[in-house]
Amino acid sequence: MTTRPLPDRSGVPAPRDTRLDPYVGSYAERTHQMSASAVRALFAVANRPEVVSLAGGMPNLADLPLDAIGDTVGRLIVEQGQRAMQYGSGQGEPLLREQICEVMAVEGIAASPDDVLVSVGSQQGLTLLTQIFCDPGDVVLCEAPSYVGALGVFRTYQTEVSHVAMDDHGLDPVALQEAITAGRAAGRRIKFLYTIPNFHNPAGISQTMQRRQQIQQICAEAGILIVEDNPYGLLGFDRDPVPAIRSLDSDGVVYLGTFSKTFAPGFRIGWVLAPHAIKEKLVLAQESATLCPPIFSQYTVSAYLQDYDWRGQIKKFNALYRERRDAMLAGLEAHLPASTSWTRPEGGFFVWLTIPPELDAEAMLPRAVSARVAYVPGNAFYADGLGTRHIRLSYCLPTPEAIIEGTRRLGEVMNHELSINEVFANPRSQHSVQPYEAPGPDQK
Amino acid sequence: MTTRPLPDRSGVPAPRDTRLDPYVGSYAERTHQMSASAVRALFAVANRPEVVSLAGGMPNLADLPLDAIGDTVGRLIVEQGQRAMQYGSGQGEPLLREQICEVMAVEGIAASPDDVLVSVGSQQGLTLLTQIFCDPGDVVLCEAPSYVGALGVFRTYQTEVSHVAMDDHGLDPVALQEAITAGRAAGRRIKFLYTIPNFHNPAGISQTMQRRQQIQQICAEAGILIVEDNPYGLLGFDRDPVPAIRSLDSDGVVYLGTFSKTFAPGFRIGWVLAPHAIKEKLVLAQESATLCPPIFSQYTVSAYLQDYDWRGQIKKFNALYRERRDAMLAGLEAHLPASTSWTRPEGGFFVWLTIPPELDAEAMLPRAVSARVAYVPGNAFYADGLGTRHIRLSYCLPTPEAIIEGTRRLGEVMNHELSINEVFANPRSQHSVQPYEAPGPDQK
Repeated sequence: MTTRPLPDRSGVPAPRDTRLDPYVGSYAERTHQMSASAVRALFAVANRPEVVSLAGGMPNLADLPLDAIGDTVGRLIVEQGQRAMQYGSGQGEPLLREQICEVMAVEGIAASPDDVLVSVGSQQGLTLLTQIFCDPGDVVLCEAPSYVGALGVFRTYQTEVSHVAMDDHGLDPVALQEAITAGRAAGRRIKFLYTIPNFHNPAGISQTMQRRQQIQQICAEAGILIVEDNPYGLLGFDRDPVPAIRSLDSDGVVYLGTFSKTFAPGFRIGWVLAPHAIKEKLVLAQESATLCPPIFSQYTVSAYLQDYDWRGQIKKFNALYRERRDAMLAGLEAHLPASTSWTRPEGGFFVWLTIPPELDAEAMLPRAVSARVAYVPGNAFYADGLGTRHIRLSYCLPTPEAIIEGTRRLGEVMNHELSINEVFANPRSQHSVQPYEAPGPDQK
Repeated sequence: MTTRPLPDRSGVPAPRDTRLDPYVGSYAERTHQMSASAVRALFAVANRPEVVSLAGGMPNLADLPLDAIGDTVGRLIVEQGQRAMQYGSGQGEPLLREQICEVMAVEGIAASPDDVLVSVGSQQGLTLLTQIFCDPGDVVLCEAPSYVGALGVFRTYQTEVSHVAMDDHGLDPVALQEAITAGRAAGRRIKFLYTIPNFHNPAGISQTMQRRQQIQQICAEAGILIVEDNPYGLLGFDRDPVPAIRSLDSDGVVYLGTFSKTFAPGFRIGWVLAPHAIKEKLVLAQESATLCPPIFSQYTVSAYLQDYDWRGQIKKFNALYRERRDAMLAGLEAHLPASTSWTRPEGGFFVWLTIPPELDAEAMLPRAVSARVAYVPGNAFYADGLGTRHIRLSYCLPTPEAIIEGTRRLGEVMNHELSINEVFANPRSQHSVQPYEAPGPDQK
C-alpha cells in the first residue's frame, strides 16, 4: 500500500486536531453541526436493568397478540412472498395507503391515497420534507419545547429554529403571530410551522379545537405551511380524538403519521399526507433516498390492519398507558419537592416538569443516574440551549411500580440537591446535609 | 377558511408558472434539480404484461424457500416479537452486523462489526455518505456510464459528477489520474470516487485484480476516498469472487453492500463499512434520518442467514441468472443488426449495448415500447446527457424464452429504424421500407 497523504481539503482551513479523523477536512458544511451529545453516553449507563428509565419513548408491546401476528406474517411470506419481498413503489404500496386514509379518518381527515407517501417512520417523513423545503439559514417555527428528533433534523439541514411559546392549551397564537411578524420584519424566510397538537412530546399537553382553528387561520393568512406531527393523536385516555389541523385545511397542512405507537415501531412505517405538488416532490426525494420504503414492513402493517381489531388494540394500549400515567402523577405528588410543577397529560407518553430555579436538570442527570433513575433534561428540547429548568419524564415502558419507585428516587436526588444548594446559598442555615450515597445495584 | 396568499417567497424571483404548485417559490435550492423523467411515464406502460421488460433490475425471487422463510419469520415474532418490533440501535443490530462481516469475508474483507452501519438498502448508505461529504458544487468521480440511482443521489446533493472512462477491465486508471489532475488544477474539491467493481450496472463488466490495485493506489496517493458499491459481487457465474478493493485498504475505502440481490430487496437491508470516524458520522446521520433502520427486517435477514444455507441459495440464483444471460447473448446474436455490439457479463444482471450511430436510444424507446419491449436508454447513466448510443438490457427477471422474444422485438425495431434512416439519408436507395405496425397486445 502506498503512503496516504491527508484527503483533499483545498480551500478549507486546517482543522485544529485531525489526529482522530483524517477526513475531518473533507466533510460537508452540514456535517460540522453533527455531534453526539453528552447525554447519549449517559444513556448507555441508563439502560442497565437496575436503573428505572423514565427517559425513553419506547412504546409498550407486551400486549400485542404475537401469536396471531406471527401467523399472519408467516402466511404473508408463503402466499405473497414474491411480491412482499420484491422492490416496490417509491410512494408506498397502494393498499396500505388506502388503509392509512381510514386511520386518518378517525381524526376527521378526508384524504386520497394518492396524496399519501409511506416513509421509514415519520422521522424520515420529516427528513424528506425538510430536505425539499429548507436551505441553510431558513427558519422553522417550533413550539418551545419541541421534539428532540425534529430539532435534530432541522439542525442537519442547517435551518434556524424559532421557538414559539406554549400555554396550557398548546401553542400560543399571539406568540405565533409575533414570531411570524418579527421573522418577516428581519427578512427571514420562514419555511413552515412544525407543531405537535396532541399529547405533545415533551410537554404532554394538547391543543384545544379553538386553538387549532386559530393556528390554522394565522398560518393561512401569512401563507406559512403547517407541518402537523401527530404520533399520539389516537392515544387519548378519556376523550375521543380531536379533529386534526389537517381536517381544517387540505392545502396548507402537511400531516405526519406513524404506526410506531399504535402498532409497533420496529417496522419503521410512517407516512406523510401532503398537498399534491409537495407529495410529488416527496416521492422523488424518497426514491433518491431509499428507492422505496420497506415493502415487507408495509405488507405486514397492512395485514395487521386487515386481520386484526386495531381499534380494540389501541383501547388496550390506552388503558395500560392511563394506569401508568396515574402512577406517575401519584408518584410525583408523593415524592417531589413542593416547588416543582408538572403537566397532567390526558394521553400520550410524557410529563413535563418545571423544577425549582436552584436546580439544573442537565447538571443533575449524572447524580440521578447514579441514584438509578434516568430522565431527559429539558434543554434537549430547545434549539437554543434553554430548558435546563425542565425535565421530560416518560411513563410508557416501565411498570406502575417501577414508575413510582423512579419518582421516589428522583425526589430524593432533587431534595438532596436543594439541601446542598441551601447550605451553600445560606451558610448559616440550620439544616444539616445528610451525606448522599447512591445505593448499589443490588438495592433495586 | 381564510383566503390564502401565496407562500413566503421573500427574496425569491417569481417563478414563471405557479398555477400548479403554490409552494414552488418555497422549495429549497436542491429541490429545483429534482424532476420526474420522461422515461418514467413510459415505464408505467412498460409494466403491462404484454411488454417484455428488459429494463428493470428486479431480482428473481421465485427460487427462494418461501415455506421455510415463512416459518422462520412467524417464529421470530412469536418468540422475539417484543424486541424485533421495538425501536433499535441507529447503527443496526449487533448480531446482523457480525453476520455482515462474515458475508464480506467471502470477498477477502477483514472488518469489525463496530465499523458497519446498517442502512435502508445500500441506496440509503450512499445517500447518508453523500450527505456527510458533499457540499453543493463538490465533485464526485464516477464511471462512464454509472448507476442511475447513484447519479440521482449526487444530483440531490447538488454535486458535480465527473465521468471517468471504462475499458474492458473496468475503470481506466489513466483516465482516473487525468480526471484527478484536471479537477485539482481547476481548483475543484473532489470528494470521492464512486465505483462498481463487479458486473457493473449498467456496463456489465468487472475490474480485474490488477485494475483494483491500480485504482486503489492512485486514489491513496491523491488522498481521495473510494466508495466501492458492490451489490453483485457474489453473483459471478463462472468464477470465485475477486477480492474487494476494500480488502486492499481499510482506511481509504468505504464499502457499500446489500442483501437485495443475494436474498431479497423488500426488507431494504443494506450496509456501509467505513473507516471508524466516517462510521461515527454515518450513525448520527442515520439517527437523524430514520431514528434507526427497520429492526424487524434486520431480525428477518439475520434469521435467514442463521437458519438457511444462504451460500447454496446464491449458487441456485447464479445458475438461473447464467441461463438467462446465455439466452440474452444468443438472442442478441440472432436478432440484432450487425453494427451493434455489446458486453458479455460474467455475472450480475446487465448487458450494455452500443447501437449504430444513426440510432438514438432515447428517441427509439417509445417505438420499442409499442413493439412490446422495454429497455433503459443509455443517457440515464450519464450525468451529462451523453449515452444515447447505448442501451441497458437486464436479464434478471424475465424467463429465457421471454428474453429471446424481447431481443427479437428489439432487433425488429432497430432494423426498421435503420431502414427508415437509410431511405432518408439516401433517397435513391434500392431498399423499400416495410410499413411497421406495432402488434396488438394479444400477439404476445
